[in-house]
Amino acid sequence: MALSEFELIKKYFSDKQITSSYVTLGIGDDGAILNCPPAHELIVSTDILNEGVHFYPQSSAHYVGFKSLAVNLSDLAAMGATPNWFTLNLSLPEVDENWLQEFSRGLHECAQIYDVHLVGGDTTRGALSIGIQVGGYVPSGQAILRSGAQPGDRVFISGALGNAAYINKQLLDNTINYDTSLEKYLIPTPQIPLGISLRGIANSAIDISDGLLADISHVTYTSHCGAKIFADKIPFAEYLKDHETSTVNSLQLACTGGEDYVICFTVAEHKLPDLKGNAFYKSLHEIGVITGQDGVMLLDENNNEINFQSIGYDHFKAH
Amino acid sequence: MALSEFELIKKYFSDKQITSSYVTLGIGDDGAILNCPPAHELIVSTDILNEGVHFYPQSSAHYVGFKSLAVNLSDLAAMGATPNWFTLNLSLPEVDENWLQEFSRGLHECAQIYDVHLVGGDTTRGALSIGIQVGGYVPSGQAILRSGAQPGDRVFISGALGNAAYINKQLLDNTINYDTSLEKYLIPTPQIPLGISLRGIANSAIDISDGLLADISHVTYTSHCGAKIFADKIPFAEYLKDHETSTVNSLQLACTGGEDYVICFTVAEHKLPDLKGNAFYKSLHEIGVITGQDGVMLLDENNNEINFQSIGYDHFKAH
Repeated sequence: MALSEFELIKKYFSDKQITSSYVTLGIGDDGAILNCPPAHELIVSTDILNEGVHFYPQSSAHYVGFKSLAVNLSDLAAMGATPNWFTLNLSLPEVDENWLQEFSRGLHECAQIYDVHLVGGDTTRGALSIGIQVGGYVPSGQAILRSGAQPGDRVFISGALGNAAYINKQLLDNTINYDTSLEKYLIPTPQIPLGISLRGIANSAIDISDGLLADISHVTYTSHCGAKIFADKIPFAEYLKDHETSTVNSLQLACTGGEDYVICFTVAEHKLPDLKGNAFYKSLHEIGVITGQDGVMLLDENNNEINFQSIGYDHFKAH
Repeated sequence: MALSEFELIKKYFSDKQITSSYVTLGIGDDGAILNCPPAHELIVSTDILNEGVHFYPQSSAHYVGFKSLAVNLSDLAAMGATPNWFTLNLSLPEVDENWLQEFSRGLHECAQIYDVHLVGGDTTRGALSIGIQVGGYVPSGQAILRSGAQPGDRVFISGALGNAAYINKQLLDNTINYDTSLEKYLIPTPQIPLGISLRGIANSAIDISDGLLADISHVTYTSHCGAKIFADKIPFAEYLKDHETSTVNSLQLACTGGEDYVICFTVAEHKLPDLKGNAFYKSLHEIGVITGQDGVMLLDENNNEINFQSIGYDHFKAH
């Protein structure tokens, strides 16, 4: 007999080992009871993952579980927040215990790594869809915003780009078939420790989910400035580098592909010595500079502008 | 040309008039920045509404928008919390501007009534699904839990039951056709002021979403006690009373139907004078008593037990 909603939550999603002193009450009531640490602000972020849009029907449930939480944590990383709790909205076409077992294993694995606690949620019938909301804390006034970039700031990214874009393109073109061994190239690594270490150093930050140029545009738009990005400084991720032979294609994929989940941030020149002392400095890439003019320009080594038809992913536009 | 995700959010969901001093930053960054008032706890709750499960394909978008937020606020009401903010996860099969216009009108109408602010969210392609998460505050230690019921407590409900159950049954039986004029009987009224007024008075509370007996079972299960509910004390809601002629059917619908969104709460005998002084006292119904034995019993006027095959709604079981 199929599990009831109540049994399903108890079996797969109760978090019996909540060790955070900021979680007073987790799953099991009409709401969770949480405590904000003194002199801190609460950062809340949420993302949906739908089958066929954010993951493939063939994706392993473990990967889907891990990714669902990881992409949300990536948003907190970009704000400089320390994550603490999350809630899960899960729509399932049916109760598939094998899927649930693996999904919850991936979810809890990610939760354990980043020390976040599942405090509530809702499960219901529907097309497979996962909605997660995360909460984290940052010392008051120290959250890193998209809107803080200043002309002259150097633009950094915290990792290489283009794996997800290239793999998704190959799958779309039927050049390769989906294989769960690809998931190691696709799994996001939320850069929480880096985000925390950038408090007081970065003027602005965003996580790269829609594509480098699209996400930098969000920064420059809200900061009322522009940016020059140097194409030859952009690092290509492992799978892309190993498999794609055209540098032009690689560049486009790295700049517009999305789902990289590294942090893009900007730092004022006088803060560069602080950044150089940062434990993560060696893994950073300086890729451009914030300008006083509107718009984001991608420049080649001769300072000529490179244009792509589309700069990033939009859920409601053809691309 | 269809709106982009960015334009869609800007047009329908940006909340330009955030007046709460507890919201530092709303929509537009990787996360919202929120402040918990001093000496308060944060209450967080979340619910999904899927087309075909929680509302009909024929439901008006205005109703769906209002209901999506209202059912979440109802959870906060049952905790005694003052709502402050919410986030919206919206999966849409396509961009239908008429639908979005009416949906957002319903959503903002509900938000305005209860003074809550839309601070973030995500929109994506998928089967029509709305996930909302609400946050509210309660003075530390004063949240009303499901687990606080004590033997001897009187059981109250804050309104009449059975409208949604009866209308849904008629629609399922094809006795009536869906008509948006039915929505006035279906629209939830989250009982926020009542919930706040029950702080320090009620030992336990829950909102009735799954069905009276199922929801009381949640209270007795977590409180390690039982309950006797007196069938003749259960008030039938307007539409049910006006249309169903069989008292037996009415009773079953009122006890097991769900989606009533009134508050069920328990009060110790020594607190009854305080409850009588409550501004909402006249709209309350005393329907039973908490007992020391496990299980919820529904009793007729001769003290005989009444049993129904199913006591409430479960998303993953036939009922």
